Amino acid sequence: MLFLIRRGTESIPIARASRSIGSLLIRTTTNNTPRRFSTSLRQPQHLAVDTHDTTDTMADNTKDTKEDIKAPKPASNLQIKTPKGTRDWHGPDMLLREQLFQIVSDVFKRHGGTPLDTPVFELREILAGKYGEDSKLIYDLQDQGGELCSLRYDLTVPFARWLAMTSTQQVKRYHIAKVYRRDQPAIARGRMREFHQCDFDIAGVYDPMIPDAEILRIIVEVFDALKLGITIKLNHRKILDGLFAVAGVPAEKIRAISSAVDKLDKMPWADVKKEMVEEKGLPEEVADKIGVYVQNAGNITDIINYIKADAHLPTNDDIKAGIHDMELLAAYLEALEVTDKVSFDLSLARGLDYYTGLIFEVINKPEPVAEGDKKKKSKKDDPASQVGSIAAGGRYDNLVGMYGKKQIPCVGISFGIDRIYTILKARGENDIKKREVDVFVMAFGGGKDFDGLLIERMKIARQLWNAGIRAEYMPKAKPKLQAQFKAAEGTPLGVILGEDELKAGQVRLKKLDQGQGQKDEGNLVPIDSLAEEVKKLLL
Amino acid sequence: MLFLIRRGTESIPIARASRSIGSLLIRTTTNNTPRRFSTSLRQPQHLAVDTHDTTDTMADNTKDTKEDIKAPKPASNLQIKTPKGTRDWHGPDMLLREQLFQIVSDVFKRHGGTPLDTPVFELREILAGKYGEDSKLIYDLQDQGGELCSLRYDLTVPFARWLAMTSTQQVKRYHIAKVYRRDQPAIARGRMREFHQCDFDIAGVYDPMIPDAEILRIIVEVFDALKLGITIKLNHRKILDGLFAVAGVPAEKIRAISSAVDKLDKMPWADVKKEMVEEKGLPEEVADKIGVYVQNAGNITDIINYIKADAHLPTNDDIKAGIHDMELLAAYLEALEVTDKVSFDLSLARGLDYYTGLIFEVINKPEPVAEGDKKKKSKKDDPASQVGSIAAGGRYDNLVGMYGKKQIPCVGISFGIDRIYTILKARGENDIKKREVDVFVMAFGGGKDFDGLLIERMKIARQLWNAGIRAEYMPKAKPKLQAQFKAAEGTPLGVILGEDELKAGQVRLKKLDQGQGQKDEGNLVPIDSLAEEVKKLLL
Repeated sequence: MLFLIRRGTESIPIARASRSIGSLLIRTTTNNTPRRFSTSLRQPQHLAVDTHDTTDTMADNTKDTKEDIKAPKPASNLQIKTPKGTRDWHGPDMLLREQLFQIVSDVFKRHGGTPLDTPVFELREILAGKYGEDSKLIYDLQDQGGELCSLRYDLTVPFARWLAMTSTQQVKRYHIAKVYRRDQPAIARGRMREFHQCDFDIAGVYDPMIPDAEILRIIVEVFDALKLGITIKLNHRKILDGLFAVAGVPAEKIRAISSAVDKLDKMPWADVKKEMVEEKGLPEEVADKIGVYVQNAGNITDIINYIKADAHLPTNDDIKAGIHDMELLAAYLEALEVTDKVSFDLSLARGLDYYTGLIFEVINKPEPVAEGDKKKKSKKDDPASQVGSIAAGGRYDNLVGMYGKKQIPCVGISFGIDRIYTILKARGENDIKKREVDVFVMAFGGGKDFDGLLIERMKIARQLWNAGIRAEYMPKAKPKLQAQFKAAEGTPLGVILGEDELKAGQVRLKKLDQGQGQKDEGNLVPIDSLAEEVKKLLL
Repeated sequence: MLFLIRRGTESIPIARASRSIGSLLIRTTTNNTPRRFSTSLRQPQHLAVDTHDTTDTMADNTKDTKEDIKAPKPASNLQIKTPKGTRDWHGPDMLLREQLFQIVSDVFKRHGGTPLDTPVFELREILAGKYGEDSKLIYDLQDQGGELCSLRYDLTVPFARWLAMTSTQQVKRYHIAKVYRRDQPAIARGRMREFHQCDFDIAGVYDPMIPDAEILRIIVEVFDALKLGITIKLNHRKILDGLFAVAGVPAEKIRAISSAVDKLDKMPWADVKKEMVEEKGLPEEVADKIGVYVQNAGNITDIINYIKADAHLPTNDDIKAGIHDMELLAAYLEALEVTDKVSFDLSLARGLDYYTGLIFEVINKPEPVAEGDKKKKSKKDDPASQVGSIAAGGRYDNLVGMYGKKQIPCVGISFGIDRIYTILKARGENDIKKREVDVFVMAFGGGKDFDGLLIERMKIARQLWNAGIRAEYMPKAKPKLQAQFKAAEGTPLGVILGEDELKAGQVRLKKLDQGQGQKDEGNLVPIDSLAEEVKKLLL
């Protein structure tokens, strides 16, 4: 394949050129990938996207190309599409998404949250060393001279970088934005390369568990506002680490064993045990002890009592500290009416290394299925059962300190907004009205001499716009009445102009979309009070 | 300088490695650069930004680096900052920006606009051949295997790509988002690499000039809402091309001469003429003829009459077509009450090649200076006089067709939102309240036995949150009263809890920030009706 460079008006074919050493083909596996969300926390397959899920092949990488091509003329076989793993948003999808962002940010503001916006790319060194194996999923910008940069991978590291470079000591900040992961996109498994995160974090030195409790309260308020039933699974890194230590896991294997335990929601205990023993070299009796502990979940008090009743656990210092935190938390969650939504689940581990205290993950509790519907709504069809966790977070007290200047403890939650969007969409919430226009201004008339009343339609629309009313007219000089009614579909009100009525200083105001049989002729309204009459009808 | 790669827990220094052929140092000049906005349409120098304006030096490009470093440990001299030419947004700046976006999108919706969101990067081939010389300013993503992508350079090309790949035939779409230009950033000259565009475009086949007139009306509504005085400079590509042809410019030089004329707002005619004659080889008498024509500006009718009265212009076919459009436009602008804001300016040329009809550019008309203030407000201090044009656009009927599938004529406007932000900020509009919280919940008490009433504060806050009220409390178990008042600064209302009052089922509700001398003790309010009482006070 040849590209053409345009120089002035000439087109010059250029020959095969050598490729950048940066373009080595990197293939990634997503097992054991530590991250704030597990790899499956993305949009599931029934999400209609414009993106083509064409699989990358080696052929893609053997294209003749030249790094410094400046203005190649589009090749005749140019594919007109968005890049792999990305999509456009428009129409009802976009309106639903905006509604969702509005609901979530209203909750954030209710808790004193302030918005932060950071650049879409960061210095490469800022991201370095934060994501473990997953660093290979980071999108790098090409080195075109100057600083080396990468697209942001999450919103947490940019937040920590911002905290480190400003004088901020305490803040509740929220951030709703896209993040980028060069994962093998699989629309079928619901994974996008450009997707949204929606984070609320509380930074600062406070008394223990008070901000943590507020984060859990925020989770409850968000999902209440969205009318989605949830369970928040909780655990505490210190308790988990203590459990492993008591069971006999060597200190250096704790993170690896932790990440095996994290898979208990996706695979049976037998398989997790096998991974621990065969892959990670844990003695079988240690794995069995872990198995006994981590299969406990229930309300906070019950699990605290379970741990306290154990012969070995209560003496471990980490466990003691964690229990103290969980006791405080239990009291706070009671005051904040969050208690009935949480489950203290000793198997919850979360992948990311940087968590230091409370960790949590939110799962959607599907609506109870009515008897008659059982066949129709199998678990497989239910989007809630496919999307996995819909929010997740925890306490990370050491991340800001990695930038060396100061240590600011933080706790935060990240909502998987694309997954939540998918559940809402499947629930039919995209049936919101397609148009956001209030009034369509039309001209009535016929015959050869009918002049379309364009100037008059413009004047009426101008009057409505001046009053803050959303109005449109057909951009034709002499439109047919039928065409105007068709263009007005979905708009609640119509204003119909006729020459005789205009002479009398009047227009006809009519409710549209009245359905069959409802023949509303509307009312003649003086032009001077039209805006007022429209506002009355819109109420 | 050496980087370290971390492998497991070891740090290994790596030696100088060869660099990508893509990283050739590219230096750009910004003269003659065709684009929707001229290069100066960015944030001017008095915008406070966090970004360090360190100038790139060759040294930056001779760093030892290695393309496939996956997790380098942050070097000890790691600079904690945002990449060059980018900034964070938080606090009053962010709130003002959000307010601005809200005002603009309200106007867009009033005209039936629907939001479109596209990925931040596009296939490289989609952008190719659209920006002429400025293609060198495009940020490319590194080739990490798979498709070659680049960050979007504007919002117009992604819109055209979206039109080309969907079945959309007609749409009013708006898009507020960041775009990326790898320009030499110069905060002093107000140029950022990541900045906002805010576009409204009308696509579809309609009767001539009707959508164009609505776009101009939208401009007026946006700036009316922002209380910014403006002048919209108008011209028509066909009239301009006709003028050049009549004056004797050879067809192949028309775009180059056009771009010279475009500089008339920044340099005197003598310099523009010099560029035409000496650099672009135009005979002097041709330049002189152009000079006579393009120095005319005024209301549409006057300029139409001027052209019609000329001995040569009225016979040119392009001019005839352009005049017909401008006559229609004059009538429509009258109906839409836009007439007094426009100036038909024959020197307006606009850089981008893709414009085919009406073109326009909006300049801020500074507030009239009061006599006494003259010294204080010199033109130099006035942000409006430094930012240049604050919105610009035009008709582009052939861009969608460049993707080969179908031709959809479009007309659109792009608001330079960062420049508008700068003017508003300089006008003092960032004095909006820092906090967005309504109520601060405090505990009153003293002595050793005071327990801080944390659980009670939480319960009261929960009650307020349930009622949709924005509330906070201090995240301390036993806070001092003074510290709580300090934390409450900027919050309009305080709820003060005391043990005795709580026993009586009451709390004290108090207006805060009453200033000196105003000693408001507030009122005791039954807890059950607190939310209601708070809402009354907030009205």
